[in-house]
Amino acid sequence: MKRGGVVHGARLAYETWGTLAPGRDNAILILTGLSPSAHAASNAEDPAPGWWQAMLGAGKPIDTDRWFVICVNTLGSCKGSTGPASINPQTGETYRLDFPELSLEDAANAAHELVAGLGIDRLACLIGNSMGGMTALAYLSLHAGSARSHISISTAPQAQPFAIAIRSLQREAIRLDPNWNLGRYDDEHYPEAGMSIARKLGVITYRSAMEWSGRFARIRLDSEQRDDEPFSAEFQIESYLDNHARRFVRSFDPNSYLFLSRASDWFDIAEHGHGRAADALARIDVERALVVGVSTDILFPLSQQEEIAEGLRKAGAEVEFVALDSPQGHDAFLVDIEGFGGAIAPFLGRL
Amino acid sequence: MKRGGVVHGARLAYETWGTLAPGRDNAILILTGLSPSAHAASNAEDPAPGWWQAMLGAGKPIDTDRWFVICVNTLGSCKGSTGPASINPQTGETYRLDFPELSLEDAANAAHELVAGLGIDRLACLIGNSMGGMTALAYLSLHAGSARSHISISTAPQAQPFAIAIRSLQREAIRLDPNWNLGRYDDEHYPEAGMSIARKLGVITYRSAMEWSGRFARIRLDSEQRDDEPFSAEFQIESYLDNHARRFVRSFDPNSYLFLSRASDWFDIAEHGHGRAADALARIDVERALVVGVSTDILFPLSQQEEIAEGLRKAGAEVEFVALDSPQGHDAFLVDIEGFGGAIAPFLGRL
Repeated sequence: MKRGGVVHGARLAYETWGTLAPGRDNAILILTGLSPSAHAASNAEDPAPGWWQAMLGAGKPIDTDRWFVICVNTLGSCKGSTGPASINPQTGETYRLDFPELSLEDAANAAHELVAGLGIDRLACLIGNSMGGMTALAYLSLHAGSARSHISISTAPQAQPFAIAIRSLQREAIRLDPNWNLGRYDDEHYPEAGMSIARKLGVITYRSAMEWSGRFARIRLDSEQRDDEPFSAEFQIESYLDNHARRFVRSFDPNSYLFLSRASDWFDIAEHGHGRAADALARIDVERALVVGVSTDILFPLSQQEEIAEGLRKAGAEVEFVALDSPQGHDAFLVDIEGFGGAIAPFLGRL
Repeated sequence: MKRGGVVHGARLAYETWGTLAPGRDNAILILTGLSPSAHAASNAEDPAPGWWQAMLGAGKPIDTDRWFVICVNTLGSCKGSTGPASINPQTGETYRLDFPELSLEDAANAAHELVAGLGIDRLACLIGNSMGGMTALAYLSLHAGSARSHISISTAPQAQPFAIAIRSLQREAIRLDPNWNLGRYDDEHYPEAGMSIARKLGVITYRSAMEWSGRFARIRLDSEQRDDEPFSAEFQIESYLDNHARRFVRSFDPNSYLFLSRASDWFDIAEHGHGRAADALARIDVERALVVGVSTDILFPLSQQEEIAEGLRKAGAEVEFVALDSPQGHDAFLVDIEGFGGAIAPFLGRL
């Protein structure tokens, strides 16, 4: 691992769609945000809709009739890949805080191993969203020539203080929950309150004020939707956050969350360019790149997407930069399929 | 109280600067944001600097050589005015959650009583910042002709869902702290963790990403500034938030915080205009108004300042609208004295 330590017998969960061409030159790898699993879309083994269902499939913007698509669950996550919630084979105990300090470079190297293991020398395209976009920049920096093209979506060349502040506070909410207990929780004593606050803060920063003003305005809950607790939810926006938190709290491992969140703060492409982000980007070797961002994204602002586009351009890539006005903020890539698909489909079509 | 209940023997803490003219026509009232006290600036009784020290004084933008300035601590606060931390004279016990449901209209009526008690029929100017700006709109709606002019700063005609979401999460952090104990905490069992999260979330949303990128970038703490707790602060931005939280946590009553925060969510000027915000604003009777907002304010966005300016213009006031590009976000009125003072001084000068 970049910062020391070893994970013995690490496993990565991944899913694939489409067929690898005989020349092994039609592979696309998708690196995800902090919380999604490898299940980006339904497939034969799991027909449930995935987190990028509308983007990925036959005839969709990432067309699985043409491309062999791989999506990997990040190293350190809890959706099948090895992470803090896994058993350490050397001790027989769950890693918890004994998991080595995880960096996005480690996640990138693990994903690169997976691709190599599938017999693919060079990806047709590496796609990264959000945290996965940072992981993708690490991947391209560490493995020159590993992808012909790159799609960078709503991400950052380095974590900036506003995003660090948000993530630090999310981690603090978990750490301050007495049930976190330095990572030694179980199903009965589980840091539910901390996870709920962390998730709500996530949802608040993943969306945009503009979208919510249109969608929720000041609509109040019906009386039967309210409870009698003092200061409890009274507006629809509060119940929307409650529902998001309820779905997340028990489905994502709190320690994994802490490790991945901190890895995002640590990420700085400048470490691959002698301290200069622009120099690091200028060393990335792809033929073409598409960089997409959203004007309402407060967590990964458009200026950071411009920085990536400019850097890759200086690296000699043919770069297309698309700034979308989607109202959905950082999460727009999950929902504004018209906007994102409208940029991704022609880019892939021209490869 | 607007929503029912009575506060017997309520008191308001206030401070004044300058001299009331014989005609009692030079009074300015300042209504504050959620947390400040009435101590806006140093004065004879308390020489310590106040929260608007650079704005208020002899020869300053709010010139106390000319104006008799009053600043009031909001009803429901804990800085001298009656609120949830006060003793209920009818029971001899601290109100805590038995304090009546507080609205900003109640706070406005209390402030209006204070002004009347000082023998002032009509203010020369009513100034409101942030939550105090909403209180000021309530004041002007409830008391026609109570002010010749109005300065509205970084506020909202109604709470929008993004701001409600942030405040709801701040309240939840306090409520989920086991030491909050439905409002029955004491100095030994105090909801420190919840208050810390609430304050940090406040500071994050009061400032702007742009300011922090310039100020903190990715600067790390020195090793002696760090502690050994897992996932503890590592970047300067995190320690900046820690310091803010540490100063606040024990100096503001958690129950007061909950009541004032909820009152802000409830505020909707439309309630004074048969359900239409524009109609309510159009009924406000001031001769002149200055509306100031900041482009980097994510909590009270510029669009809401424009809505106030437009509404007051329709009410027949001569309105000056100033959009500042201060990098400091919502808090800019506390620190960008050049920008805010540069708008306030000439406005008051022309009165």
